[in-house]
Amino acid sequence: MFKVTIRDHIMIAHSFTGEVFGPAQQLHGATFIVDATFASTDVDENGIVVDIGRASERLRAVLADLNYRNLDEDSALAGQNTTTEVLARLIADRLADSANAGDLGPGGLALAEIEVTLHESHVAWASYSRSL
Amino acid sequence: MFKVTIRDHIMIAHSFTGEVFGPAQQLHGATFIVDATFASTDVDENGIVVDIGRASERLRAVLADLNYRNLDEDSALAGQNTTTEVLARLIADRLADSANAGDLGPGGLALAEIEVTLHESHVAWASYSRSL
Amino acid sequence: MFKVTIRDHIMIAHSFTGEVFGPAQQLHGATFIVDATFASTDVDENGIVVDIGRASERLRAVLADLNYRNLDEDSALAGQNTTTEVLARLIADRLADSANAGDLGPGGLALAEIEVTLHESHVAWASYSRSL
Amino acid sequence: MFKVTIRDHIMIAHSFTGEVFGPAQQLHGATFIVDATFASTDVDENGIVVDIGRASERLRAVLADLNYRNLDEDSALAGQNTTTEVLARLIADRLADSANAGDLGPGGLALAEIEVTLHESHVAWASYSRSL
Amino acid sequence: MFKVTIRDHIMIAHSFTGEVFGPAQQLHGATFIVDATFASTDVDENGIVVDIGRASERLRAVLADLNYRNLDEDSALAGQNTTTEVLARLIADRLADSANAGDLGPGGLALAEIEVTLHESHVAWASYSRSL
Amino acid sequence: MFKVTIRDHIMIAHSFTGEVFGPAQQLHGATFIVDATFASTDVDENGIVVDIGRASERLRAVLADLNYRNLDEDSALAGQNTTTEVLARLIADRLADSANAGDLGPGGLALAEIEVTLHESHVAWASYSRSL
Repeated sequence: MFKVTIRDHIMIAHSFTGEVFGPAQQLHGATFIVDATFASTDVDENGIVVDIGRASERLRAVLADLNYRNLDEDSALAGQNTTTEVLARLIADRLADSANAGDLGPGGLALAEIEVTLHESHVAWASYSRSL
Repeated sequence: MFKVTIRDHIMIAHSFTGEVFGPAQQLHGATFIVDATFASTDVDENGIVVDIGRASERLRAVLADLNYRNLDEDSALAGQNTTTEVLARLIADRLADSANAGDLGPGGLALAEIEVTLHESHVAWASYSRSL
Repeated sequence: MFKVTIRDHIMIAHSFTGEVFGPAQQLHGATFIVDATFASTDVDENGIVVDIGRASERLRAVLADLNYRNLDEDSALAGQNTTTEVLARLIADRLADSANAGDLGPGGLALAEIEVTLHESHVAWASYSRSL
Repeated sequence: MFKVTIRDHIMIAHSFTGEVFGPAQQLHGATFIVDATFASTDVDENGIVVDIGRASERLRAVLADLNYRNLDEDSALAGQNTTTEVLARLIADRLADSANAGDLGPGGLALAEIEVTLHESHVAWASYSRSL
Repeated sequence: MFKVTIRDHIMIAHSFTGEVFGPAQQLHGATFIVDATFASTDVDENGIVVDIGRASERLRAVLADLNYRNLDEDSALAGQNTTTEVLARLIADRLADSANAGDLGPGGLALAEIEVTLHESHVAWASYSRSL
Repeated sequence: MFKVTIRDHIMIAHSFTGEVFGPAQQLHGATFIVDATFASTDVDENGIVVDIGRASERLRAVLADLNYRNLDEDSALAGQNTTTEVLARLIADRLADSANAGDLGPGGLALAEIEVTLHESHVAWASYSRSL
């Protein structure tokens, strides 16, 4: 299996609902370092899984909808906690949609799996992986 | 699959038995940066795999039994080399026991896998993963 | 010159005033990885600049006043942008006050300089250094 | 599953063929931080997957054939782009051959999988994994 | 003193002249992770040293003249080894010229020092600092 | 000012004397990631501060006297705590002696400063800098 990963980041505000979150129930924020991994059983005739330039642009576009915002006010995210896990899934699903729509080129249509990892600090991170 | 990882560390002394270890047969030591990963097929109603605060406390408790010690004198570890691999398994098994005992809350009872990675330096690390 | 650095972090929400900030004028957030450096021309009779345990507790106490909060609502920070630079100075000044008050022990009273670095992402960080 | 990873690096020049590569079609270069991971279902009687010293030597030997060179002039690599993905596979395959030949000792003959990750920058990396 | 650092990177080919360089006399290459630090005795009325967005654009522009190229063929660099040290000075000088020309805004005109660090691998890096 | 840094590491056992150290009074250990920085006001005719290969060998030689050992039994270190600060000074002084003896070549005789940083974990490090 081949995997290619690119890194970008977002800076967002949000709050959580549920006693388990303690002080994180207050409005606070996070920098999420976002690693998007594209996995394929083989490389194409150019020797790549996907075009890194194109994948970076798509990741940036997906992140632009979240970046520099208060996620509590994003209607598309209403009714759920925007935890690191949930955001990892959201970004992975949007990248998968983008790949399936051909936005990542032919390599994107041949992907076996996408994994997205969000680092919320130097001591905690979460990821979500899914097949395509 | 969702995964959540938290990082902590221990500073221990030990020595190894076996010619393969060369100078590491002498009493020496290591800082192990410990990454504990908890994997689950889904998140709970709060949007999390496990409560990170609770998981961090449990990891700290498991590591407290090893930290600032000479592992050569730990009777629970007698008769085996406390290599990076062996310590990764030990910590993973103790975290798994803790999860199964309910110490990590309901999320801990739904875990699919635990993986523990110990970084012994900037150029070498080892991990052990097991299902629950 | 001897220097000792300890690392911790905070997760905050805030917004900036001023066209120069572009989209960061909106309410957003950040994880700041905080590195506090204590410099001294010599070590004490124990061979240390400051007690790392004590310094870590003081840093944690200083950060607790900021952590998991919307800094726009902190009256002590009103009338200024809580940029990475400004927060680095704020934390350095509070650590300096703490050192001068004896909270870091005798080593803290002999410090020559304190520097605080805040990493806002993997591609941007800022620091403030001051003498004591 | 146990995994052991060691890190080394190479510094090479190369160019790519194909419009998808844009400016990387020109002769340029890269430092590849190389992580080689050896996976096994169990550790041996010494408590290790493979002897890290021996594995480090083999990795260094495999990398020596590539290091400080213009890969465009390596006849063994002719007719293909030496992308990060392709080089990861090349190094993994050579390590697998070495393991199968007994160069990594008895532990090397019991390996389940080898994975090689090449970091081309702080924001992009690729890996190839294969069974043995 | 306040300092702000931004990170970017370049991927170049080059060779060195001089026996001291050993195998690096051959055409090879490097990824240089480039950290540009801007230091000032005070922040402006917005609470910043320089506008990070503007500084990032200037750094990217300076790096664009070097990126994806064989530096041996750059006439502006002829007659000298493009070592990590020399490239750090080149980038720092070009950023200083840019700051003095007002490209970084008013904050750029008030800078006390610029430092540029180039990481050539995970185990070696070099920097050049100069006053303005 | 030009600076060149190289990284290596040691794995040692030791204990501390003094109540301030708490549990670190017991025999324990550490991996120290060692960064040695060589500073000079100018580069030589080759464009370098010191030959990195030669500097790496000297650093390795200095570290070899400490590596894989119980520092409590090193008579050269008797009567003092081998704290991170003290070890940073010891290594810096030994590198300075080596530079002054010509072991680093002509560049080593022109050094302005040596700084040694020891990372004892991902959240704590210490350094010692001295002029030559």
